[in-house]
Amino acid sequence: MTNLVSNQGIPFTKMEGLGNDYIYINDLAENLSNLADLAVEMSERHYGIGSDGIIVLRPSSIADFKMRMFNLDGSEGKMCGNGIRCLAKFIYDQHLWSDKHLTIETLSGVKQVELIFNQSGQVTGARVNMGQPILENSLIPVQTKEANWLQHPFTLENTTYQVTAVSMGNPHLVIFHPEITKLDLPTLGPKFEHHERFPEQINTEFAEIIRSNEINMRVWERGSGETLACGTGACAVAVASILNGFTDNTVTVNLLGGSLIITWDTSTSGDVYMEGPARTRFSGSYYPNTH
Amino acid sequence: MTNLVSNQGIPFTKMEGLGNDYIYINDLAENLSNLADLAVEMSERHYGIGSDGIIVLRPSSIADFKMRMFNLDGSEGKMCGNGIRCLAKFIYDQHLWSDKHLTIETLSGVKQVELIFNQSGQVTGARVNMGQPILENSLIPVQTKEANWLQHPFTLENTTYQVTAVSMGNPHLVIFHPEITKLDLPTLGPKFEHHERFPEQINTEFAEIIRSNEINMRVWERGSGETLACGTGACAVAVASILNGFTDNTVTVNLLGGSLIITWDTSTSGDVYMEGPARTRFSGSYYPNTH
Repeated sequence: MTNLVSNQGIPFTKMEGLGNDYIYINDLAENLSNLADLAVEMSERHYGIGSDGIIVLRPSSIADFKMRMFNLDGSEGKMCGNGIRCLAKFIYDQHLWSDKHLTIETLSGVKQVELIFNQSGQVTGARVNMGQPILENSLIPVQTKEANWLQHPFTLENTTYQVTAVSMGNPHLVIFHPEITKLDLPTLGPKFEHHERFPEQINTEFAEIIRSNEINMRVWERGSGETLACGTGACAVAVASILNGFTDNTVTVNLLGGSLIITWDTSTSGDVYMEGPARTRFSGSYYPNTH
Repeated sequence: MTNLVSNQGIPFTKMEGLGNDYIYINDLAENLSNLADLAVEMSERHYGIGSDGIIVLRPSSIADFKMRMFNLDGSEGKMCGNGIRCLAKFIYDQHLWSDKHLTIETLSGVKQVELIFNQSGQVTGARVNMGQPILENSLIPVQTKEANWLQHPFTLENTTYQVTAVSMGNPHLVIFHPEITKLDLPTLGPKFEHHERFPEQINTEFAEIIRSNEINMRVWERGSGETLACGTGACAVAVASILNGFTDNTVTVNLLGGSLIITWDTSTSGDVYMEGPARTRFSGSYYPNTH
């Protein structure tokens, strides 16, 4: 399957961020081939290692490193906020980089990442520049005559919701609600996801303001259903909340899988920054053939 | 959590037999404590390593080694056919034992294990003495006036099945059927499992004779539903088939998760032997604390 296969196996590290768990492989030497097949085999939870997919570190000609990610079904992913934080920690822990700032090329462009250290000098997480939010309905896309939706009335089966539409590279609809734990997402989520207004379907976030710097949220991801965490969804919630004056420009967003700190720099760059944890769970060698 | 925790983490090997995947830990030095908690943490598939449980190697005063196994819910298991084969390979691969025969103490007594090697001298599986089958209904237990059930008529909702009752330390009901892939186990299984004749519930095997030395089977395990493989279930199927004259004394039993070779030594000891694969998937170090 790969050129690297030997009696020592393929060295890997399993890491997680907010419960999103990937297998990280240093392939700066570009020895591995068939990454899609390798992802399927390694991700299988009984016969392989078990993960949401693999993230392979490669050299880049336009950034410090390149990230390639493959989901457990073998499809290639563009970018993953939880994944890129772990990859940055992986790079530092492998002694491949010693500065706190680095750039990583992804299929969604080059991302700027800043490592977060604890007092003992260990990397515990990272802060990622997620770029500028898009608020134009035509670009999100939302099919409507209004240019933007900020707490805009949206009626679904006799209930009117106040919705805010935001794209962070993917489309999000944010709905503020006083008690999100009581919501029946498996019923509600698909109705937004497949509504005719959203030609590319939509991720829907239900957000509850706790205080001026803290929000709880649940997310219904298009194609996946309710998930433990969605980094771009947390960014969209923070942007919607800041735009509507509900919170400050830096907010802690609590998801089922853990918390992220989102900052929207509205004064200069307009970029959204996402800060969150990255944890190493185990590292080892994987034996692709019967051993 | 444990005395062994250090910056190097806890060394482990992840192995599988017929899709039954456990984490194997050499704790001959008896450093680890709180094995139940460790099993829960390590077995979690997103935040831990991910497994069906952990199997810990300990010293024994009555056998060559002792096996302790903990399921992913922290409960201690008595014995697992797929697990003990992998443990035997683990012991050999770690250079803790060099003979092809060894004895392992379990909560179901001391088991005799024979290693299986390929031509390159690698251990690919093992053969385990599973002891003598029990055919007395009072001991299995089956609540009925008949002493044994060998192709005995058993009527369930207007359908009469020919059933054979066997205990391999746990109760089994074997039903031969010409096309087991067509059976609706989620509907059928619970009706046998919870029938009043079986005071301790029952595992039900649906078996299809392929030829005189090969059987396909599906199993409905009490408390678990349909599973990929059940070692004692395969032994019960072979015993039922041999008793009824359907197959030879050595049969390959194909389960959803893979194949086992079952031999019933009816001429001397009366013991049933189960031979099957053991595979190492990866090995590494686990970091119980945030790292």
